[in-house]
Amino acid sequence: MAVKGKGLKLDDKGLVAAIVQDANTNQVLMLGYMNKESAELTLKTGTVWFYSRSRQELWNKGATSGNMLKVKELWLDCDNDAVLVKAEPAGPTCHTGEVSCFFEPLTAEHVAATEG
Amino acid sequence: MAVKGKGLKLDDKGLVAAIVQDANTNQVLMLGYMNKESAELTLKTGTVWFYSRSRQELWNKGATSGNMLKVKELWLDCDNDAVLVKAEPAGPTCHTGEVSCFFEPLTAEHVAATEG
Repeated sequence: MAVKGKGLKLDDKGLVAAIVQDANTNQVLMLGYMNKESAELTLKTGTVWFYSRSRQELWNKGATSGNMLKVKELWLDCDNDAVLVKAEPAGPTCHTGEVSCFFEPLTAEHVAATEG
Repeated sequence: MAVKGKGLKLDDKGLVAAIVQDANTNQVLMLGYMNKESAELTLKTGTVWFYSRSRQELWNKGATSGNMLKVKELWLDCDNDAVLVKAEPAGPTCHTGEVSCFFEPLTAEHVAATEG
């Protein structure tokens, strides 16, 4: 099968950003990063795999907590450097127990206190 | 006002990933990157500002095409290193004319042809 456009375009760390959206509610659940191998594993297994930048290892999201993400749709953006995963979560996606990692309003105080 | 948790946490390039979602339809429209100044401008102006990694400059999304993004909600993730913008788009967000930059299904062929 022909590929429309080019292949997945990795950054200088070998990663693409991957947005996870609930396939049923359309709530945005989290943002992670995939390397080539985690994208392959996500396609092959039908569950979401990331590459953890802090732990520097492949990470099958939810494998420890049981809150796996079942892939329903995978989309690539027009620059080929970002992925949108529409998935069914088995439970809360955030490690805090919240449904989504985006549970805190961004304020001017956060921006004023920017680090790094 | 007290900040819950820490400030915005920039990566080694001084950026955070910013997901844009249509506030009305919940469709994910694009992924961009913000530096501290673009986050400040987004909060201040109520329109979305990014930092363009390729052009290395601040970028008021839609200023050229007229398809501005009007900010309705801003959310920070649990790691303080990703932002979710819920916005009302004035027109198609993608430079191709598509509503969303995520209009192409990701396939094994894209992953096999990975670059970079």
